[in-house]
Amino acid sequence: MADSVNVGILGKGTVGGAFRRLLNDRADMVEEVSGRRPRVSGVLSRKQGDFDRILSRSEIVVELIGGIRPAREYVLRALREGRHVVTANKQLVAQHGDELVAAAREGGAQLRFEAAVAGAIPVIRVVQESLGAIPIEKVFGIVNGTTNYILTEMARSGLSYGQALKQAQELGYAEADPTEDVNGADAAAKMTILARLAFGAPVTLKDVPYEGIQQIKPDDLSYAKELGLSLKLLGVAERVSDGEISVRVFPCFLYPGHPLAPISGPFNAVMVEAPAIDEITMSGPGAGGMETAAAVLGDVVSAIGGGSPLFEENANLRIAKDVEMAFYLHLEVDDEPGVLAQVAEVLGDNGISVRSVVQRGLGGEAQLIMVMHPVSEKAFAAALKKIAKLKFLRSPPRSIRVIEEEWS
Amino acid sequence: MADSVNVGILGKGTVGGAFRRLLNDRADMVEEVSGRRPRVSGVLSRKQGDFDRILSRSEIVVELIGGIRPAREYVLRALREGRHVVTANKQLVAQHGDELVAAAREGGAQLRFEAAVAGAIPVIRVVQESLGAIPIEKVFGIVNGTTNYILTEMARSGLSYGQALKQAQELGYAEADPTEDVNGADAAAKMTILARLAFGAPVTLKDVPYEGIQQIKPDDLSYAKELGLSLKLLGVAERVSDGEISVRVFPCFLYPGHPLAPISGPFNAVMVEAPAIDEITMSGPGAGGMETAAAVLGDVVSAIGGGSPLFEENANLRIAKDVEMAFYLHLEVDDEPGVLAQVAEVLGDNGISVRSVVQRGLGGEAQLIMVMHPVSEKAFAAALKKIAKLKFLRSPPRSIRVIEEEWS
Repeated sequence: MADSVNVGILGKGTVGGAFRRLLNDRADMVEEVSGRRPRVSGVLSRKQGDFDRILSRSEIVVELIGGIRPAREYVLRALREGRHVVTANKQLVAQHGDELVAAAREGGAQLRFEAAVAGAIPVIRVVQESLGAIPIEKVFGIVNGTTNYILTEMARSGLSYGQALKQAQELGYAEADPTEDVNGADAAAKMTILARLAFGAPVTLKDVPYEGIQQIKPDDLSYAKELGLSLKLLGVAERVSDGEISVRVFPCFLYPGHPLAPISGPFNAVMVEAPAIDEITMSGPGAGGMETAAAVLGDVVSAIGGGSPLFEENANLRIAKDVEMAFYLHLEVDDEPGVLAQVAEVLGDNGISVRSVVQRGLGGEAQLIMVMHPVSEKAFAAALKKIAKLKFLRSPPRSIRVIEEEWS
Repeated sequence: MADSVNVGILGKGTVGGAFRRLLNDRADMVEEVSGRRPRVSGVLSRKQGDFDRILSRSEIVVELIGGIRPAREYVLRALREGRHVVTANKQLVAQHGDELVAAAREGGAQLRFEAAVAGAIPVIRVVQESLGAIPIEKVFGIVNGTTNYILTEMARSGLSYGQALKQAQELGYAEADPTEDVNGADAAAKMTILARLAFGAPVTLKDVPYEGIQQIKPDDLSYAKELGLSLKLLGVAERVSDGEISVRVFPCFLYPGHPLAPISGPFNAVMVEAPAIDEITMSGPGAGGMETAAAVLGDVVSAIGGGSPLFEENANLRIAKDVEMAFYLHLEVDDEPGVLAQVAEVLGDNGISVRSVVQRGLGGEAQLIMVMHPVSEKAFAAALKKIAKLKFLRSPPRSIRVIEEEWS
């Protein structure tokens, strides 16, 4: 009879249930590929089970409770006591990565969290293992399926943000409380984790400025449609200059031909750029219960195999204070002479160069739609502040970032 | 001082040289992520070095000689004597997989071959590790960059096959002797390896029928362009029914919207379908020297970490004798009454249903271009044999497979 491996499961929700069923269904296959047969040594829910008892009986602890408390305590204890931990908890890893790594070292245990980022796409494994010794320049992509579904539907059917969100909730692509998805916090946690792995930099969640999609208007999307642009909520982690990195989340227009432009619906896609490999693109469904459970199972198999890579830190990397981006600017103005000239003056004074302008008259009102060449984000923010004060503005200015590189 | 790990390198060609430089450049980073510093313990070329001496001094042997002899002997000996082996040699793994796995077991060594398939895309790791315990339905994609470059250029610029090949050779995307790339043998070896990993089935290279792209005419591509179709050399490994799998390589038209349709130039892309994860798509540059060296380095880091997954076999899976595919059929015929009727009769007699027909008159000649609904490959081959004998044919019939599913 084969050697068995005891797996304790913390959490009895959607993912916990899906994982438990999957582990049971695939026990033969896990035994085949890893040489050891998994056995569930205990399941902890809010109401049932005793953590100490599960801990004492498990070699691997799978944390699917979510949130920080009590997940953090449980994971720290398990690692310190030498239990390998597999978790899908992005907030825990993003906010307490240092502490978790220290606990894993102390206990000689593995910490694996493929399921915390990008659903079914094994981006953690690729960044941490395949490219572990390759200097990565940039990791970026669509890491939240809820917002990608909403933006896809707004673009496709002209729905408002509220209507598209409602539809996403009805289809199970958005939760009853969608705040963390739609405001970008979920994507920011995932990008924090990816940035740490890609650059070995001590990035924490508070280093990652994020914007969500709640303010996106159907207008923005109809403009994009005319030009063939797609609107995506992007997470970007990149080296911006020697010794500096930048990690951010923002809605962004993509020019046609960009590899992320066709990613639609509740899908995720991540691109990794490194000189040695040019670029790799990976796409797949976002984190549903089954996809997350499958990623957790992959980590369990790897944990049985051993050899978790380290999660090293390069304290020499700093977070950049400013980066360059191109912007789209949408202004609703009174249709009167001199408006364009005044806006252009403010932009020019701040060193911002305009790439294209469209002015549309609508009776006494007009729309000014401008795309800038790449510019310092701080300079653009300063200009925007001044533009917001111009008297002829009928509503607050709206700006969205643009990736203007042309892809072949 | 950190523990070091001795790496013996077999092969001094393009990849061997690129790997040696990369290992040297990245020694600090390898040490950081794996905890051990790599040291080159010896390099073997055709003219220099002594294999026994390198073997005795190495913990990991990196085989970059290519070909079967003497690579097979070296790898078998290294594995049996407990040295981990990292290889980029697809023919060796595809033709002698069983023997290599047995030797690795005997010596308690790891065998890793990420660099043998799909260039910079870590598809082996994903199939073997992330999805190791998930039942995979289908692995397919573009696994040869040379042919994808040639087909892209034929479609883009209307070049003939010969012109596009010459251009690929000038740019370094095709070798002086391109036979194995253009006839599909290279892709067949890669699909053999992927099929073994995805299904655990004892597939060998001789189970994999393959066709290349040498017979593709600019005509075929101009027809495709009109309909928005792309032509790709596809490798497919799939379960076709209970207990049967099919592994094949063939040129194929893809409908617009297919995730592989936009993959152009010397790029590779692989899709993995499994019920638990829907589908994952991974794309990146094909196997240049640097990409291969980077994949080898990833394997070296993993080998230091330990825990290579097993390469198990499920002897219950059989190779399917027939599969269903849709076909495009191109006939050059005399432009006379009754031609279409006779062709349609032969197709009907073989149970083949026509999806669309275009007949174009060109003076006394005509072209008949037909697309069939999916049909048994054997039935289509039988019909094609009969059609080839029809008297009004001005040249041999040409057929190309079509993937007709519509992708959203």
